[in-house]
Amino acid sequence: MSTESPAVAKAAAAGASQKAAGNQKQLKKSKKNESQFLLKTPKGTKDWSDKDMVLREEVFGTLSSLFKRHGGVTIDTPVFELREILTGKYGEDSKLIYNLEDQGGELTSLRYDLTVPFARFVACNSISSIKRYHIAKVYRRDQPAMTKGRMREFYQCDFDIAGNYETMIPDSEILAITCEGLTSLGINDFKVKLNHRKILDGIFQACGVKEEDVRKISSAVDKLDKLPWEVVKKEMTVEKGQLEEVADRIGEFVKVSGSIRETLSYLQSAPLLAQNECAQQGIVEMAQLADYVEALGIENHLSFDLSLARGLDYYTGLIYEAVTSASAPPTNAEELKARSKKDSKEKEVEDASEYVGVGSIAAGGRYDNLVGMFSNGKSIPCVGISFGVERIFSIIKARAAKQWETLSPTHTDVYVMAFGGGEGWTGFLKERMAVTKQIWSAGINAEYLYKAKANPRKQFDAAEKAGAKLAVILGKEEYPAGKVRVKVLGQGDDTNEGELVDSESFLEYVKEKLAAYDEDGLGAVTKMVKNL
Amino acid sequence: MSTESPAVAKAAAAGASQKAAGNQKQLKKSKKNESQFLLKTPKGTKDWSDKDMVLREEVFGTLSSLFKRHGGVTIDTPVFELREILTGKYGEDSKLIYNLEDQGGELTSLRYDLTVPFARFVACNSISSIKRYHIAKVYRRDQPAMTKGRMREFYQCDFDIAGNYETMIPDSEILAITCEGLTSLGINDFKVKLNHRKILDGIFQACGVKEEDVRKISSAVDKLDKLPWEVVKKEMTVEKGQLEEVADRIGEFVKVSGSIRETLSYLQSAPLLAQNECAQQGIVEMAQLADYVEALGIENHLSFDLSLARGLDYYTGLIYEAVTSASAPPTNAEELKARSKKDSKEKEVEDASEYVGVGSIAAGGRYDNLVGMFSNGKSIPCVGISFGVERIFSIIKARAAKQWETLSPTHTDVYVMAFGGGEGWTGFLKERMAVTKQIWSAGINAEYLYKAKANPRKQFDAAEKAGAKLAVILGKEEYPAGKVRVKVLGQGDDTNEGELVDSESFLEYVKEKLAAYDEDGLGAVTKMVKNL
Repeated sequence: MSTESPAVAKAAAAGASQKAAGNQKQLKKSKKNESQFLLKTPKGTKDWSDKDMVLREEVFGTLSSLFKRHGGVTIDTPVFELREILTGKYGEDSKLIYNLEDQGGELTSLRYDLTVPFARFVACNSISSIKRYHIAKVYRRDQPAMTKGRMREFYQCDFDIAGNYETMIPDSEILAITCEGLTSLGINDFKVKLNHRKILDGIFQACGVKEEDVRKISSAVDKLDKLPWEVVKKEMTVEKGQLEEVADRIGEFVKVSGSIRETLSYLQSAPLLAQNECAQQGIVEMAQLADYVEALGIENHLSFDLSLARGLDYYTGLIYEAVTSASAPPTNAEELKARSKKDSKEKEVEDASEYVGVGSIAAGGRYDNLVGMFSNGKSIPCVGISFGVERIFSIIKARAAKQWETLSPTHTDVYVMAFGGGEGWTGFLKERMAVTKQIWSAGINAEYLYKAKANPRKQFDAAEKAGAKLAVILGKEEYPAGKVRVKVLGQGDDTNEGELVDSESFLEYVKEKLAAYDEDGLGAVTKMVKNL
Repeated sequence: MSTESPAVAKAAAAGASQKAAGNQKQLKKSKKNESQFLLKTPKGTKDWSDKDMVLREEVFGTLSSLFKRHGGVTIDTPVFELREILTGKYGEDSKLIYNLEDQGGELTSLRYDLTVPFARFVACNSISSIKRYHIAKVYRRDQPAMTKGRMREFYQCDFDIAGNYETMIPDSEILAITCEGLTSLGINDFKVKLNHRKILDGIFQACGVKEEDVRKISSAVDKLDKLPWEVVKKEMTVEKGQLEEVADRIGEFVKVSGSIRETLSYLQSAPLLAQNECAQQGIVEMAQLADYVEALGIENHLSFDLSLARGLDYYTGLIYEAVTSASAPPTNAEELKARSKKDSKEKEVEDASEYVGVGSIAAGGRYDNLVGMFSNGKSIPCVGISFGVERIFSIIKARAAKQWETLSPTHTDVYVMAFGGGEGWTGFLKERMAVTKQIWSAGINAEYLYKAKANPRKQFDAAEKAGAKLAVILGKEEYPAGKVRVKVLGQGDDTNEGELVDSESFLEYVKEKLAAYDEDGLGAVTKMVKNL
């Protein structure tokens, strides 16, 4: 792990204020239209456009290729499901589910995540094994604090392996995908924290937590990534009725983290766990995992962290969460207080507990019983990872702030222009159309100005706005003489005249020039991400 | 236009019965789970998976590249909008809008199409010009007759040009995109029918239709693609109160179609229209269009058809609709009756009017006033095309039925196996992991069996199921001696032993073999579409 990067934090803050400014702008507009109606997107939603779409395509494309590389297939489920499918899957967060109005017929709700629809899909189609990925929007009626990026409509990007396989083999592949996914997006300063639900539950049992209290103590431990131990301990003892000594015993365990083998060796020599069957089963599985992740060469990215608990109830085995150094949790109560104070000034974050999951950029785990809830108990074991793509966008944008400035939202390569004037000057509109058509037919991106007679300045401005790399110019005398002029754009040299080439063979010349423009053929946004 | 292709009609029918079978299967499953709940997707929705997803990616990818080639950028708007945004835009079809439940806060509805959200986006962001494409799902609470492909959730794929440009220039580019889009998807037997709202309205006025009746007479004419003239005439006279002679005059016009120049020459010499300002304005514009489409080389795909009216109220100029020969409308009452009878046997189509839009695979037009409805009248003229991507999928699947059979849903290139047995045989699990990791790192898609000790048969079966092209085999003696075996799969020759290569340099050999496998680098699905 590298040290915390102030660049990202700063840029994240800048992003927040930009968004806030955006909201104000929107509000202002809304007021203008008050007599009509509010002209905006619904609360917690936004339009994606411009360069954001270019980056999004890059991120989704990179991850899709990765998933295919690992044998994945993609599916697409409806944006709404029968309400009963979602009922009872999300605990108290079920109140955040968006219902569709009862307009007669079935009761339906917008999907809350991609995991429950996936389990429904597997059960519905009696699938025994599948590696599937799914990149799509999910819906939660949260009270969005927009600056913190908590939207009501947002993207999830999931890869899951369903099927009866030998212990920890698919799990280790999911971890490999997590690491490859982040590095392929130019994010190298990350750590994947691991834990195992069986070990965690075993620790709680061995420390003296009653069976019925295990989940709520687990959810207290889950807050250790954002709260100091004293606060969590207080929650366990005062709020959740555990004895001080029980909490202290837990406290000894949950402060342990290190490589898989280091933490394993601690656990294997812990007298308290020696007789705990549940913990021992988890320990055996983690030892297997240690072998596999070494074979896959990803062990250096992993940290076996006994404080990781993960919120969702349905996890049954290995759990994990990737964090970047840029969004590390506060390390002590002082810093936490300082952060909280700063934020409350911005009237966005009301208390420290709002920091839930700030650092996580990918997370997941094994859930062996979810499919069974849809198929009369015939369970299909599953393990999966969900990339926090919207957070990853922000990180990339922040880290590539300089290249971001110059990125073009369009993919236009060639701008076709006509130069002329004086008597008998037609503007060469039809000629520009015909030449552009030739360029399109060669598979090259091209535009021209939608104007019969356009002056050179306007055409150059339009070409610059479109981010075109080359101008193909039809001159009043040159074109009828069988020549077009090809000029390289955007090199700050407006005086270069370009090259006069045969209009019969200009396409070859254009292709050469474009190939030289982007020698490695990667494109601006791919390069931006690769060079983060 | 080529003649009607019976292959497509047949295949479309086969697709229909497949779907019906799918429904039955689902119903059966649902019953099994009755005690629990219905295990299915909501009415009118479906899961996309398997080979359908591969084809969908190909179609969306091809169209996205096309749109970029023409300078397009993409946007993504929320799946739901403030309800007021949608109100009053869809006439009587507004009853099909899906509302979200009022759970406190804003009233919202799922988007009904991509055009109104686009207009809202343009107004909201004060955009003066944009070429945007958007491929996404839209929602209509229709009563779905599933075999006819009328779903409640379905894809739209739109390209629109917004901005104040000279007459017919962007319109002609939209037509070029329509033609290029269809041919790039392997569909060449199509015709784009054109008409102009100003000409149509001028004809109605000149024939004696009162101003207030124009829209309803237009909507009667719109049915001519599925009903014979006698039926439409009856609707005009009996239901819509026009004089017999008015209907007859209209009848003379709407039977005219041909090339743009042919229909233009008919209109220019029609005495009835000589004094009609509205029609004359349209005629001037169509004459300009004739020039432009010739420059763009697409005139042979176009037909200026005075019977084309298009349903939506918001069109203000050029309108168009692409049809394939495979789904041509019935040419006379006899055939119509025969079709209707055939269909009623299948208990799916109840009357002839159900044929609405069967033939259309792309449609659109100019709408100059929609953005103005969101921006206090500051209008931005727009023109656009919507590809009927779900219908296009069906056509491709039907026409490529043979290649479709052999298409693989996965993209796996290499399957890594271990051969061995007897004493001391470990199964080489970690070795397979490490080798697979090497292959992934080279950007190649690879899998291995998630099993510590797997027999050769099971590994070959899994490789075949994954559609792998090569096997990389770690032999019990060979691998420790620094060799791996590379075997080409799927050539019906199970006896070939493959090639034994150095494990240091096997990746180069694998790359060579894969390059030879797909010499043009197009991939199976691209080739399938190209060779339709």
